Amino acid sequence: MPEAMTAPMGDGFEQAARDAVYRAMFTRRDVRSHFLPTPLEDEVLAQLLLAAHHAPSVGFMQPWNFIVIRDAARRAEVRDLFLAAREQELPAVVEERQALYRKLKLEGICESALNICITCDRERSKGSPLGRWHNPEMDLYSTVCAVQNFWLAARAEGVGVGWVSIIEPKALKNLLSIPEHVTPIAYLCVGRVSEFAPKPDLETHGWGRRLPLPDLIMSETFGGQGEAPLKSTASRLNGFVVERACAADQRVAPAVPQREPPNEASALSFNSRNFDDASASLASQAGSGTWPAMVLK
Amino acid sequence: MPEAMTAPMGDGFEQAARDAVYRAMFTRRDVRSHFLPTPLEDEVLAQLLLAAHHAPSVGFMQPWNFIVIRDAARRAEVRDLFLAAREQELPAVVEERQALYRKLKLEGICESALNICITCDRERSKGSPLGRWHNPEMDLYSTVCAVQNFWLAARAEGVGVGWVSIIEPKALKNLLSIPEHVTPIAYLCVGRVSEFAPKPDLETHGWGRRLPLPDLIMSETFGGQGEAPLKSTASRLNGFVVERACAADQRVAPAVPQREPPNEASALSFNSRNFDDASASLASQAGSGTWPAMVLK
Repeated sequence: MPEAMTAPMGDGFEQAARDAVYRAMFTRRDVRSHFLPTPLEDEVLAQLLLAAHHAPSVGFMQPWNFIVIRDAARRAEVRDLFLAAREQELPAVVEERQALYRKLKLEGICESALNICITCDRERSKGSPLGRWHNPEMDLYSTVCAVQNFWLAARAEGVGVGWVSIIEPKALKNLLSIPEHVTPIAYLCVGRVSEFAPKPDLETHGWGRRLPLPDLIMSETFGGQGEAPLKSTASRLNGFVVERACAADQRVAPAVPQREPPNEASALSFNSRNFDDASASLASQAGSGTWPAMVLK
Repeated sequence: MPEAMTAPMGDGFEQAARDAVYRAMFTRRDVRSHFLPTPLEDEVLAQLLLAAHHAPSVGFMQPWNFIVIRDAARRAEVRDLFLAAREQELPAVVEERQALYRKLKLEGICESALNICITCDRERSKGSPLGRWHNPEMDLYSTVCAVQNFWLAARAEGVGVGWVSIIEPKALKNLLSIPEHVTPIAYLCVGRVSEFAPKPDLETHGWGRRLPLPDLIMSETFGGQGEAPLKSTASRLNGFVVERACAADQRVAPAVPQREPPNEASALSFNSRNFDDASASLASQAGSGTWPAMVLK
C-alpha cells in the first residue's frame, strides 16, 4: 500500500478551520427579534438539512424527519398555540420575574422565512434497538444532535434559528398530523436576519448570566474536587479563545456595544450601564481584560 | 452613531469558514476502535468544554456539569457496567443480527485518554422555568446540544469522542455519586485517535446505511408531499457539499478505501465488495458520481 494511503488520519483541523468551528458555536444565537422578510433559498436550506442529517444517531438509527412549514395560516395557528402556552407558563414563574417574562420576545414564528419541525420516529429501529435498551430516550437525544448541527450550519450561512419550546406538544402534534409514535423535538423559526445579537437575549435582558465554566467542572464523581489545572486553564482560555474565534466577526467592534433602540416587539429597555456591568463581571470571570469587547461582538 | 457601528451583522461566514463547519459535521465519528494512549492536554480539553458551555439552553439555564473521569479503577467499573448491559440488551436484538451485535466494538472506556460524563441538573432554574412548563425535557435537550458542541469541537481538534449508551443509568449514577435531581446524559470516551474512520462503523459493518435525505423531508404536515424543488436540491448537493467541505481531509484519498485489517477488538471482517456496493448505492442516492470517493474520506 503506498505510503500516502497509510498516513495518519487522526489529525485536527488547521487553526483557521478550528476557529471557524468555534466561531459558529460562540456567535450562534436563539433568534427571535431579528428575522428579515427575505425568502430562504432552497440551496441553503438543503445544506442545513444535510448538516442535520449527518448528526450522530444511536445505532445509526437516523430517527429524524424535517417538516417544512411555509403556509401563513398554519403558522398563525402555531403562534396561537404559543400565545396560549405562554399564558399557561407565566404563573409558574416566580412573581418578581413575571413582568420581565411578559416583555421577552420568545418566538418569530410568523415573521421568519419558514418554520421547520424536527421530529423523532421512535419506531425506526424496531427489532434492532442498539444502545436503547437501558436508555430508550437515546433516539430523542440523537434528534437533538441533528437540531444542533442544523443550528450551527445555519449560523455559518447567516441564517437565524429560534427554537420555540413554549407550546403544548399534543396540540402541535395534532396541528401537524404527527402520529403517535413520532415525537416533535424542536419547532424552529428559520430565516435571514438583520443581525446576530452580541449576547443571548436572556443575558442582555437580565434573565440570566453565563455561569463560570470552572464551577461546572467536577472530578471523578459528581461534586468531586480536583482538576485544578484544567479549571485554571478553562478560566484563562475563556476570553482568548472567544476572541480568536470571533475575530472574523469584528467588522464592527465597538469597545462598548452600540445597538439600535429595541423595537416594540422586544420592548425591554436597554440599559447600557447594566450591560457594562455584566460585561465587567464576565471579564472578571474570564480573567481576561479582552473578554468584554469580544463576547459582545 | 458612526456608519461602521450600524453595519448589518447578520451575514454568514466566508466560504472557507463555512466549509470548516460542515467538515466537522461530515467527518465527526462515534469513535470506539482508534484511541491512542496519548494523554489529552488540558489546553485542548478546556476548549472542548468551553464549546460545550456555549450550547443553547432553555431559559439560559445552562444545566450541564462535566465530570472528568481519569481513574483507571473507576473506568474499569464503568466498563463492567457496559459489559453487563450489553448482555442484557442482546436478546432484544432480532436473532439474525445478534452475531453481528456481539462482534461490534461499542466503547473505548479504558483505552481512551479520559472519560467525561455530561450531566443535567434538573433543578438549576427552579422558580424560573422559562420554556419548560409544557416541555420539561428541554433541559435534557439543552444538555445534548452541549454534547454535540463538545463532539464537533473535538473533531476539529483531532480528538475522538465515543458516546456509550449501553449502560444502566441507575448503576452509573450510583458509581459516580450523581444525586437524584441530576440526570447523566452522555458518558463519553475522549482522546487522541489514530484515525477518524471514513464512514460510521455501523455503516461499514453493515448494521445500517445512511438514509436518503429527500425521503426525510416533509411538507406542512407529517407525511405531507411537496417541497419537490428542495428535495431535488438536497439530492443534487449531497455529494458536492460533502466533497467541498472535506477537501482539506484529502491528504489520503484513495478512490476505493484502503484500511488496515481490523484488530481483534473490532473483529468484523471488512468486506471491500460490500463496501463498494454501499458506496455505489450512496452515489446513486446522491445523484452524484463524485460521492463515493468523497464520503469515504
